[in-house]
Amino acid sequence: MRIAILGAAGMLGRKLVDRLAAERTLAGEPITGFVLHDIVTPSAPIGDYEIELLSSDFSAEGEAAKIVALWPDVIFHLAAVVSGEAEADLAKGYRVNLDGTQALLEAIRAVGSGYRPRFVFTSSLAVFGAPLPDVIPDDFVLRPLSSYGAQKAIGELLVADYSRRGIIDGISIRLPTICVRPGRPNKAASSFYSGIIREPLNGEEAILPVSLDIRHWFASPRAAIGYLVRAAEVASDKLTVRSLTMPGVSATVADEIEALRKVGGDDAVKLIREQPDPAIHAIVSTWPKAFDARSALELGFVADQSFEEIVEIYQRDELGKA
Amino acid sequence: MRIAILGAAGMLGRKLVDRLAAERTLAGEPITGFVLHDIVTPSAPIGDYEIELLSSDFSAEGEAAKIVALWPDVIFHLAAVVSGEAEADLAKGYRVNLDGTQALLEAIRAVGSGYRPRFVFTSSLAVFGAPLPDVIPDDFVLRPLSSYGAQKAIGELLVADYSRRGIIDGISIRLPTICVRPGRPNKAASSFYSGIIREPLNGEEAILPVSLDIRHWFASPRAAIGYLVRAAEVASDKLTVRSLTMPGVSATVADEIEALRKVGGDDAVKLIREQPDPAIHAIVSTWPKAFDARSALELGFVADQSFEEIVEIYQRDELGKA
Repeated sequence: MRIAILGAAGMLGRKLVDRLAAERTLAGEPITGFVLHDIVTPSAPIGDYEIELLSSDFSAEGEAAKIVALWPDVIFHLAAVVSGEAEADLAKGYRVNLDGTQALLEAIRAVGSGYRPRFVFTSSLAVFGAPLPDVIPDDFVLRPLSSYGAQKAIGELLVADYSRRGIIDGISIRLPTICVRPGRPNKAASSFYSGIIREPLNGEEAILPVSLDIRHWFASPRAAIGYLVRAAEVASDKLTVRSLTMPGVSATVADEIEALRKVGGDDAVKLIREQPDPAIHAIVSTWPKAFDARSALELGFVADQSFEEIVEIYQRDELGKA
Repeated sequence: MRIAILGAAGMLGRKLVDRLAAERTLAGEPITGFVLHDIVTPSAPIGDYEIELLSSDFSAEGEAAKIVALWPDVIFHLAAVVSGEAEADLAKGYRVNLDGTQALLEAIRAVGSGYRPRFVFTSSLAVFGAPLPDVIPDDFVLRPLSSYGAQKAIGELLVADYSRRGIIDGISIRLPTICVRPGRPNKAASSFYSGIIREPLNGEEAILPVSLDIRHWFASPRAAIGYLVRAAEVASDKLTVRSLTMPGVSATVADEIEALRKVGGDDAVKLIREQPDPAIHAIVSTWPKAFDARSALELGFVADQSFEEIVEIYQRDELGKA
């Protein structure tokens, strides 16, 4: 089995490559090769695999055809212009996130000859827009309030239609906010969700810009990789709906802090400094609080068990502590 | 006020041009000119107007720019590859219905200088897919089961996002099945809905391929034109949601036949011949039966009062009978 990954140099892409290369199988089949693509050249995995490393703008003319040229059996489409940039640069967001996804699907169609890969598209909670119920059901209407969310919702419609037409065997998975993200803080409004765990566990001060009662929907990087793998495995005949909200952990900022206390102690918690930022508060307070992700659970997608587990996964996977 | 209409040579396009040209105003402003576009050259309306008639594939490079070159204040986007053709020719459907709509929105953005037209996009009930409740609420999830439906759902997302970004002042209206369509029967699965009224009123036999209890959602051509006009008029600040299901008349085939009896008598009804077609029955039995189109009603969109009125409108507007 040959696997293609777009966005292979990103945080999730690298972890996905590492896990697949270590496991050597996917959906019960031995993995023989990887086609890894990103805007910068991705790293090759360790192991005895045929490996093709591609770097380009996949939305540029002819690039998508190169990615599917070797008929990958599974295509993980993780590539996207991120939320903030899609809002700042409308044309670029639509070119990559919409036109690029369309070009990729058309390149698959152009292969013909019965080629029909499993196509895993990473969608986002940004497809949902306020007003939202406290617990959002699987069949909730998509009313995105960002260009990124609109582009992801459009991607879901394309994946569903191209699947119905027999061109791909597609599945869109809406990932929760990934926490704890390794690395440094960034300018995303969601940055503090990881920062208030990551920085204290590294002995650094973290800024908390919102109140303790703000609630949101989380998955560890490890759980997210599990969703991607499961999305490649789930039987086609179970996919009566092609877009699935992923399960997650619903936690308040207060829940986060209590989990940090259990794992890192009071000294870690003392490194969180409350510094209210009304602009960030306004943004994140409209975000989803929790989902009833029943369909995904029935299909075998497995969430973290608690926010404490999410913190422990960061300690183990990123800091190397047991 | 200058008005552009894409799809101006179609059934609704021609009726819209005629009505606007006769009324001479829209949203309280005098109409000064029309830009009329279609794949074939549209007819010019009667009246003292600046008129530009354009014929082209509006999705072709540079064509959208010509349509918006004169800064129309209102753009009615009725142009589309229809349902059957979008299913038969995937590439053409996406090129016109998705890429074309995107090109049009990008052409508007390229004008810049504060240009922000009212943009009326005709969407469709095909954005909804089975399983459906008997009465579909305004916030029901979009799960189209045709490429046409997917393309219309994507169009709605684009219209909402470009409106949020201040590039257009957009509104997508989901039209009911238009009944009674003038003209001849066609190969659409929905053709009989008009046929069993139109043919008998013209003294011809009509085939009924489905059972009497099949229920669906209808609007007369006159009501549909009313929706388009209202969509151009409704105040921007009322459009908290940019996609609206239009009100309509929910009627069974039996209701249709009783309305025909009242208007055309028993002799007309006798011209309907039942000839069950399981394929057509299977298709139309998955279609929406009724909507609770509350948001549109609150915004002043007005439906036909009954199926009898729908039949009378056909007699009056198409056959010239009082």
